Amino acid sequence: MPVNLSAPDPARLLPVPGVRIGVAEAGVRKANRKDLTVFLLDEGASVGGVFTRNRFCAAPVQICRDRLAGGDAIRAMVINTGNANAGTGEDGLARAQQVCSALAGLLKLNPSQILPFSTGVIMEPLPVERIEAGLPAALADAAPDHWARAAEGIMTTDTVAKAFSAKATVGGAEVTITGISKGAGMIRPNMATMLGFLATDACVDPALMKQLAQELADGSFNRVTIDGDTSTNDSFIVIATNKAGNAPVTSLSADDGRALKAAMLDVARQLAQAIVRDGEGATKFITVQVDGGRTAEECRQVAYAIAHSPLVKTAFFASDPNLGRILAAVGYAGIDDLDQTTINLYLDDVHVAVNGGRNPAYREEDGQRVMKQAEILVRVDLGRGTASDTVWTCDLSHDYVSINADYRS
Amino acid sequence: MPVNLSAPDPARLLPVPGVRIGVAEAGVRKANRKDLTVFLLDEGASVGGVFTRNRFCAAPVQICRDRLAGGDAIRAMVINTGNANAGTGEDGLARAQQVCSALAGLLKLNPSQILPFSTGVIMEPLPVERIEAGLPAALADAAPDHWARAAEGIMTTDTVAKAFSAKATVGGAEVTITGISKGAGMIRPNMATMLGFLATDACVDPALMKQLAQELADGSFNRVTIDGDTSTNDSFIVIATNKAGNAPVTSLSADDGRALKAAMLDVARQLAQAIVRDGEGATKFITVQVDGGRTAEECRQVAYAIAHSPLVKTAFFASDPNLGRILAAVGYAGIDDLDQTTINLYLDDVHVAVNGGRNPAYREEDGQRVMKQAEILVRVDLGRGTASDTVWTCDLSHDYVSINADYRS
Repeated sequence: MPVNLSAPDPARLLPVPGVRIGVAEAGVRKANRKDLTVFLLDEGASVGGVFTRNRFCAAPVQICRDRLAGGDAIRAMVINTGNANAGTGEDGLARAQQVCSALAGLLKLNPSQILPFSTGVIMEPLPVERIEAGLPAALADAAPDHWARAAEGIMTTDTVAKAFSAKATVGGAEVTITGISKGAGMIRPNMATMLGFLATDACVDPALMKQLAQELADGSFNRVTIDGDTSTNDSFIVIATNKAGNAPVTSLSADDGRALKAAMLDVARQLAQAIVRDGEGATKFITVQVDGGRTAEECRQVAYAIAHSPLVKTAFFASDPNLGRILAAVGYAGIDDLDQTTINLYLDDVHVAVNGGRNPAYREEDGQRVMKQAEILVRVDLGRGTASDTVWTCDLSHDYVSINADYRS
Repeated sequence: MPVNLSAPDPARLLPVPGVRIGVAEAGVRKANRKDLTVFLLDEGASVGGVFTRNRFCAAPVQICRDRLAGGDAIRAMVINTGNANAGTGEDGLARAQQVCSALAGLLKLNPSQILPFSTGVIMEPLPVERIEAGLPAALADAAPDHWARAAEGIMTTDTVAKAFSAKATVGGAEVTITGISKGAGMIRPNMATMLGFLATDACVDPALMKQLAQELADGSFNRVTIDGDTSTNDSFIVIATNKAGNAPVTSLSADDGRALKAAMLDVARQLAQAIVRDGEGATKFITVQVDGGRTAEECRQVAYAIAHSPLVKTAFFASDPNLGRILAAVGYAGIDDLDQTTINLYLDDVHVAVNGGRNPAYREEDGQRVMKQAEILVRVDLGRGTASDTVWTCDLSHDYVSINADYRS
């Protein structure tokens, strides 16, 4: 059961002019499953991407990186589930290339204009022939209002599809933003991927797209964690179709750039948080906010230590205000000159620890009340500066073990 | 059920001349429980220690560090379970001092000659009066052959006591080595502590004790992990009573120093591995060996990434040879210039991955066979150097979640 998350209403997802999406059943791993999705981009779109830092990155990730660096105009994307094409060596690269070539042939494009994505089991050969055979059906299905279908088409062990839309005014023009994601990522490296695709019809200088994708990822997908595992296939792609008629955005610090980024970040964050809400076995959505650090980086480091601690996460699952576990995680986060006597800890509005010790006014029942909520704010004040940062995570339950112990069978 | 580990036979634990141990029931947290242990050291003993790097270290850890640095002759140690005296601020320091003062009064020693240790729940005040009241009974119990009682006396959620002995020849003299540990550490930071105490009657230059403790810890307790959490109270103490009649060891690289260290390391490693074997919910004991690195440090980094991955650990629990998860952990271990095409992976004698891809000769049933064993060797060859390192860990089971979700209730 995802935490406060339900499937998107297809009628409320806004088409993005210049993007068409088709979905098909290719039988990559199992029959009768939407497992092949194709994005078609009109000529003139700008595309940027951010990918896993895992050195064991999958074949499609290597190809995407090269193509986005190469600068050819990207006109299509092809996404399969059921197989991650990771840990597959040279043969994996050849198979991913073959899929791109097949799609390029059908679309009369150069293979370098196509980005491939795969998600599923690691270390098994990609069944190229089934994907090739499914491409015509996916193309025949292509339509601008298929975002909800695409959100379903990229699901693996997700229990609910993830898609959000927004409108914003950028440089005087109204623009549309729609995105989809699948959870995976640090959650389901077995299925091997966090995928996110975010499109807008705003006009954006192609030279700005990489920076835009990076800054959006830093504020969204790079702020969520389930179990600390980093997948081999994580990919986040940002598309601007340049159809909205605004003067092209050339800087993210100018007014129009800031307005666009803020609106896109809002959608990206919903997509990223949806992955946590649908985290394997998750029963609670936890925001970890660390204030009073010298740098945002050290705040993030502390927030991740808390968010990754199996002991903290099981305590949340049990609604047990065993809050010394949070202080212990702060202590081992790796800040060498941390002084425990300046640290304060809050659970929502409850002040738990004062200057590194238990708050004399803290009552167990107050902690218990907050721990029972489905959404919890953990706030740590390090008391050594003015920087802050936030990450989002979920609890660690029996179902996490069941799902990951039993998945392949 | 610990993995291949049973309680020590008291008759096989060798007394160490110069060490007496007494245990009592002080009712620190629960009644009818051996929860207070006192070590008495004859005059002339050398003592060294290594402590948690957690910045949120407990009050007794702060006091131990100061006293060992201060150089006064250590003559006694006092250990309570049931309360960690961590996250307790200035008041916690005062309470730990009070325990030492009470014991010093009974023994006619200076409080600076006493090392305190606490393990149990975090952020609750240490019940000093109960500990003080229990001290006379602990002292009355003191005897050289009480190592097995001590191993029981320091247990918290351990399911089995941990104690080992050995004999060795050092500088022509026969020496005895006996040690105890409790699991805890990264396993049970809730109970808040890994504790290890290792004593020998060998003669060792006091100036060498800190280095000896550090090197022994690096080869044993610093090589085990259950869940990656680092406790606030971890402590490892090494004692040399200087009774064996050998010429004092003054260097760990001389023959006598090497012989002594090797024998002590053997016992320390058994104590550390016993903690993993008794790890919360553990059903398997896993050795992660990484070869072919440029430095031992990068090998250790990769080994820990594998040993900490919840996905790898749940796969071991399920006996599921989902081995891409291990490659993914290698990939995110943080070696920036890692080349996946030089990596080989073995499970015991089964060659799973060749040059970053699946070994064509690998058969699932071979992987399955090894995964079902109670003891498993995971070996990764990075193919970029000649360094190696090893860590020990266990799997992640349903019982881990149950124990940590339910512990306080």
